[in-house]
Amino acid sequence: MSRPVEFQVLHRDPASLARRGRLSTPHGPVETPAFMPVGTQATVKGLTPDQLRATGTSMLLANTYHLALRPGEEVVAQLGGLHRFMGWDGPILTDSGGFQVFSLAARSKITEAGVAFRSHIDGRLLELSPESAVRIQEALGADVAMCFDECPALPASKETIASAVGRTVRWARRCKDAHTRSDQALFGIVQGGSHADLRGECAEALVALDFDGYAVGGVSVGESREQVREALRVTTPWLPEDRPRYLMGVGRPQDILDAVATGIDMFDCVLPTRNGRNATCLTGSGQVKLRNAAHRLDPRPIEEGCDCFACQSFSRAYVRHLFMAKEMLGPILASIHNVAYLHRLTRQIREAITEERFVQFRLEVLEALGP
Amino acid sequence: MSRPVEFQVLHRDPASLARRGRLSTPHGPVETPAFMPVGTQATVKGLTPDQLRATGTSMLLANTYHLALRPGEEVVAQLGGLHRFMGWDGPILTDSGGFQVFSLAARSKITEAGVAFRSHIDGRLLELSPESAVRIQEALGADVAMCFDECPALPASKETIASAVGRTVRWARRCKDAHTRSDQALFGIVQGGSHADLRGECAEALVALDFDGYAVGGVSVGESREQVREALRVTTPWLPEDRPRYLMGVGRPQDILDAVATGIDMFDCVLPTRNGRNATCLTGSGQVKLRNAAHRLDPRPIEEGCDCFACQSFSRAYVRHLFMAKEMLGPILASIHNVAYLHRLTRQIREAITEERFVQFRLEVLEALGP
Ligand SMILES: [Zn+2]
Ligand SMILES: [Zn+2]
Repeated sequence: MSRPVEFQVLHRDPASLARRGRLSTPHGPVETPAFMPVGTQATVKGLTPDQLRATGTSMLLANTYHLALRPGEEVVAQLGGLHRFMGWDGPILTDSGGFQVFSLAARSKITEAGVAFRSHIDGRLLELSPESAVRIQEALGADVAMCFDECPALPASKETIASAVGRTVRWARRCKDAHTRSDQALFGIVQGGSHADLRGECAEALVALDFDGYAVGGVSVGESREQVREALRVTTPWLPEDRPRYLMGVGRPQDILDAVATGIDMFDCVLPTRNGRNATCLTGSGQVKLRNAAHRLDPRPIEEGCDCFACQSFSRAYVRHLFMAKEMLGPILASIHNVAYLHRLTRQIREAITEERFVQFRLEVLEALGP
Repeated sequence: MSRPVEFQVLHRDPASLARRGRLSTPHGPVETPAFMPVGTQATVKGLTPDQLRATGTSMLLANTYHLALRPGEEVVAQLGGLHRFMGWDGPILTDSGGFQVFSLAARSKITEAGVAFRSHIDGRLLELSPESAVRIQEALGADVAMCFDECPALPASKETIASAVGRTVRWARRCKDAHTRSDQALFGIVQGGSHADLRGECAEALVALDFDGYAVGGVSVGESREQVREALRVTTPWLPEDRPRYLMGVGRPQDILDAVATGIDMFDCVLPTRNGRNATCLTGSGQVKLRNAAHRLDPRPIEEGCDCFACQSFSRAYVRHLFMAKEMLGPILASIHNVAYLHRLTRQIREAITEERFVQFRLEVLEALGP
């Protein structure tokens, strides 16, 4: 039986666990390793779908928690589903809402049934459970849905993390049972912090449930770069070679390079657009702060050699002026560049893997990025 | 001797003073009657130059006052002038700063030499005179510069308006003397309120100075639609047939139709982008308020039959969601539609003039717009 989303490994790096692959979704292929920009509220902030496409985006992420609160999944479904609603005909992944329920919602209360919480928008009392998270994601209609998991805030005791792992596995089973759409993949989420035994236990149990892909969760919640690497090192070996692996919420260039080396295929992060709104640009030689007075008369593009729309058309001096004058176009142009930068990085990673020089490439990029 | 900006009347409506024409500028032609979106700070809020071009924009306006304060005309000049700075290769008109000095600046003090005022941004003490307004506009390098005029706030006594007319004419002569760029046109501005004698006196004096075009100023400062019509009725007959006529700051569809009937060729207004940011859309059947709950599940585009990017790609339900969620893309899409609407209106006006049915067309549009 064919899966809604098929994954094919095209090449393996001989000197690391890095791999190049292709995800085939109902809305087209995604070359991996791939970065997914975040369209929290069914829009990647400030960018139209064609601007997004022009940055090199093939797949994006939307947030179930936010869309369930506003406009409501029933509105999205009545308007033809998320792709049509937001005018994006490429692949989409929705998260399960779990992460936001724990990080954003007010006074969340967790039981075995699910999580009761108050909306951060209007204080309404709401519930999210494995079954409702799947039902909402089916209504939204993304190509990939995620299991509803328990994601404990770090630092947490090993007991707390172990308890979250047990619940995450039980909830994953309920998500799988609840999931009915044959044109939508469902990914499991591995929890377990930096504990090798808990990660292994969680991964083994999820793999036995046979998901279409696997995510590494519980990172990007305040830990160090070393802790993330350790979590990955003890997790990816448990995951099947023929399924995509997705590291949630990670988008720093350094972290992407580290994670690819452990066999991760997919990334998402608000970093490029959040930094962009804040006038901070990602470049191969580190961050460029556009508000800096040094750029007042700077005729160079944000990044020399960048083929993005912002760099092809405008000087740093102009984009700086837009930020100083609080003009919307500033965040738009900086976001376009940052998203394009991460897509270029992952494209170069794919090329390096194919040409079996990923380890060297990674070191060169890290060196150029600086501390 | 050829002028930097040539104007050609292509057709006259037999039943009104409406005319169809073409403005030939160093950055290309503009079919008139034409609407110019406003790029106050060297950006039409939220829109990239190609999005602007796609709405049908051929010429836009930028504000000398704002650009002189930030980033400073010397920055724009060093970056290659306004066209290159903002990435717009079509025609641009800059106003003289006069209107903003009187309406925005704090504690402005007017003498025969010019106006001393404090910046509304940082309180710096600054001066603007006919000579400096021209010098700044030459540094910015638009295709059309405007004379520095005195624009009294209404209501004002006839004496006040007469005094402003005298000064406006004396300042226009100084502007003309100060102006040196042979690739930039200079337009005079007719003041005089609703007083036929003052308008006539001002127009006659300016026409004797032989400007490349003439603007009707001192409207859009709080008067009624009737007062604007009266000001135009007593002004345009004094202006030469072979020069473009520009009504400053007017962009309501009804006002555009009225003004075209008196022989106006060019318009600018912040209305489409300001309304757009406020979720109010212009359509042929009146305004559509996108925040209205009636649009929650509305699958229709902002305006049926509109070929703008927003209407081609998105439902009212989606754009409403963007506004409710405070997403930047909402103002962007509504602004795109509103600017496209005004360009479509002026295109239809041009067609109606060519086909000698403008009077009928005007009545039909006014009827459909409602009160
Ligand atoms: Zn770039
Ligand atoms: Zn439209």
